[in-house]
Amino acid sequence: MKNSFDVLFNPDSVAIIGASEDPSKMGHQCVDSLKNRGFKGKVYPVNPNTNEILGIKTYPTLGSIQEKKIDLAIIVVPAHLVFGVLDECKDKGVKGAVIITAGFKELGHQDGRNLQKEMAEIADRAGIKIIGPNTFGMVNTHIGLNASFSPYLSQLRKGSIAVISQSGGIAHVIVNQGVAENIGFSKVVGLGNRCNVEYADLLEYLVDDNDTDVILLYIEGIDDPRRFISAAKKAALKKPIVACKVGKSPAAYKPAYSHTGSIAGKYELYDAAFKQSNIIPAGDCEELLDIAKILSLSSPPKGDRIAVLSFQAGPGIMITDVCATKGLKLPSFSDKTKKILEEVLPPMTIMTNPVDLGFARGWKVLDTVIRAVLGDSNIDALIFFMLPHPVVPFKELFKGMVELKKEYGKPVVMCINSHQKESQEAIDVFEKNSIPVYTTPERAAKALSGLVRYGLIIRSRLFPMLMMR
Amino acid sequence: MKNSFDVLFNPDSVAIIGASEDPSKMGHQCVDSLKNRGFKGKVYPVNPNTNEILGIKTYPTLGSIQEKKIDLAIIVVPAHLVFGVLDECKDKGVKGAVIITAGFKELGHQDGRNLQKEMAEIADRAGIKIIGPNTFGMVNTHIGLNASFSPYLSQLRKGSIAVISQSGGIAHVIVNQGVAENIGFSKVVGLGNRCNVEYADLLEYLVDDNDTDVILLYIEGIDDPRRFISAAKKAALKKPIVACKVGKSPAAYKPAYSHTGSIAGKYELYDAAFKQSNIIPAGDCEELLDIAKILSLSSPPKGDRIAVLSFQAGPGIMITDVCATKGLKLPSFSDKTKKILEEVLPPMTIMTNPVDLGFARGWKVLDTVIRAVLGDSNIDALIFFMLPHPVVPFKELFKGMVELKKEYGKPVVMCINSHQKESQEAIDVFEKNSIPVYTTPERAAKALSGLVRYGLIIRSRLFPMLMMR
Repeated sequence: MKNSFDVLFNPDSVAIIGASEDPSKMGHQCVDSLKNRGFKGKVYPVNPNTNEILGIKTYPTLGSIQEKKIDLAIIVVPAHLVFGVLDECKDKGVKGAVIITAGFKELGHQDGRNLQKEMAEIADRAGIKIIGPNTFGMVNTHIGLNASFSPYLSQLRKGSIAVISQSGGIAHVIVNQGVAENIGFSKVVGLGNRCNVEYADLLEYLVDDNDTDVILLYIEGIDDPRRFISAAKKAALKKPIVACKVGKSPAAYKPAYSHTGSIAGKYELYDAAFKQSNIIPAGDCEELLDIAKILSLSSPPKGDRIAVLSFQAGPGIMITDVCATKGLKLPSFSDKTKKILEEVLPPMTIMTNPVDLGFARGWKVLDTVIRAVLGDSNIDALIFFMLPHPVVPFKELFKGMVELKKEYGKPVVMCINSHQKESQEAIDVFEKNSIPVYTTPERAAKALSGLVRYGLIIRSRLFPMLMMR
Repeated sequence: MKNSFDVLFNPDSVAIIGASEDPSKMGHQCVDSLKNRGFKGKVYPVNPNTNEILGIKTYPTLGSIQEKKIDLAIIVVPAHLVFGVLDECKDKGVKGAVIITAGFKELGHQDGRNLQKEMAEIADRAGIKIIGPNTFGMVNTHIGLNASFSPYLSQLRKGSIAVISQSGGIAHVIVNQGVAENIGFSKVVGLGNRCNVEYADLLEYLVDDNDTDVILLYIEGIDDPRRFISAAKKAALKKPIVACKVGKSPAAYKPAYSHTGSIAGKYELYDAAFKQSNIIPAGDCEELLDIAKILSLSSPPKGDRIAVLSFQAGPGIMITDVCATKGLKLPSFSDKTKKILEEVLPPMTIMTNPVDLGFARGWKVLDTVIRAVLGDSNIDALIFFMLPHPVVPFKELFKGMVELKKEYGKPVVMCINSHQKESQEAIDVFEKNSIPVYTTPERAAKALSGLVRYGLIIRSRLFPMLMMR
């Protein structure tokens, strides 16, 4: 039997209560989002004053829809009408609701809090899971469902990263980066005020969601940290969770409360909670998605010992610096590797780790160097940096690296600092073959550091003492 | 009379000694870089074994060129031939040399250091300024001069940001971001091993360079910190300097030495030196160029009091958080502004700073809000965040913001989180009108923080006590 969350995210029928003919209204944009984007279920706009919206027949009330049961209700009516609509939802067997309407806990006064508490009680009794109130909605790319007031979100590529965010704006910032960089998502959820659906609930649901491999959290504040930590701990046993928390500065506390009724709390406490619950922390939105991407594409390395190969020494040093700052190791190569490097690289080359490939010419040399490094028992993963330059054997390198990655089975991160068309094509090939690509040395190193952290988390299930490091 | 640096960066004639027919050689790429890219001066490839390279007549030696004087020599011969070539340069009246050849101080042994010292002495006696050795070269976009082994650099857009970097690779990372984001450069210089041209020399030169408004430094290590600080202090009186130093971790020290013979030194010392010399610090390459861009486009604000307007609350909170972390203030609005906001915005709106424009509809309301905020005597600068959404009056907002920025004269930073085509066009218009645009909340806030810092530096010339804050 489907539980409420299954129905919420995979509805056969969706009603939009508060649907509007006026393009400037969210009730209109919600209909637009659901229309012609591949969603195969039934769509019922509810509006007593019109016959159709965007070519879809409307109904005067939820009750007047001929279907006996409606799975998902998107509610965009004014705040004082929400409770009446919830009653109708109960009668119509609704199991999931996206309440876009604002005007509850985030108002900051007791009335707002009480209203929201009452809303939760009604919904709980009716077995309705509410996304919101005060949310942009949610998206399930795998069934083409865009249950939000943001028609733009219908462009999202299907993928395996689930985004859970209190902030709709930040969810958009994250998925916009995804659109630009060809990263796919499974579900994108704007939690809003969290009436009866919290981070913990979605962690519990997503851990068994076959479409989701990585769970990404953007957090303003959490009301029940114990429940969150407990749910995250369990979920992290099965899937990587990466999270970013706003509020490094107290200046962000007050607006965070006004936004989604969130008590931001001390950043340090969250940092500790993340560690305790095996969540991988990210410093900002870019790092958040960069880490989620590497987690979705690559298995973690067996350890934290990184090799850096770079055609340019400077970016190699930059990668080394960021890796070391993040606690990764750049060990010396084995004597065997050293010997091979000395044989094939010109004498002036820097052959310690990071290796400067500036004077390595031709694929044969590169192939030998990469084999030596990936085969080195001192090395767990590789970052490879390159810029477009006439002497770099692009095609052979791109083809060869994919094969070597398969052969040696260690994580490889490519850093291709280029906006040339041929590089864009190479990125697609790499990422289809479990090699994530980043454009700058810093981003590549931070992402790999997230993947290493996940490897440590996995190993700590067997050897808990590891996490004390 | 032109000094050596004038000749180096603005040569009438360039010889490439070590020019090659083989496309895999740097001596070939240097000829390619100089060819057909708008450089109006004479180009003389020197190679005793051929008659022409890429359609340009070659000469067997520097001496055999018919012109009496050659201004700039690009030297790509093996290390043991460099001294002979330098002698020829002296005879031919060369004033500037780009020595691409490696194999000197960066080798890490006494011989390498001695050779480089000797090189400097010879050059100093001959009045030759050397970029390098061990460099990719340099570019002066304003005369179409690409004196490097990187033909790709000929694509750079003309602009007012000068880039000085020890690392060629990182210089490329920086200008690649510039190419992707339509940012122009004046000069791009790879200092390499710094034989007789140091950061200090170029600071002294660029401070009077009419094509340069902002000086951007990427630093691995500096040999003579006192001279650097003294030169930077003087230059910073006339032009903003923004710098990034690699080496937050000791792991980066050794490779930095092997790369360009740089003693990386403790990061904290550099941080203090930057502060002392009125250099604006940047945490990474992206922030470095982001700050340089805002400095090249906008005057600094009169103070550090920022207003944040955002259609989405979450990104507004994120901007607030980064601003506060960087020491900027988000003050309350004046009573007059508060009253105006209350009049025009719907009651549920968050009207404190940051303002949530989520329910503001139409340009008239936005115009009133922006006027109130920019006219508020509590506010020195504005960050405005937006995402693409049907209810945002794009065209009026873009046109109106440019006019309001002119009318109120306070710095405005736009954060447009979008990869839509219409946004790209808007970015061009904004940046032509002194409004820098960034794609993420974090980048916008960090960039503005750099501009605020510059404002503080400027005011501290009159009120030195300000810098103690």
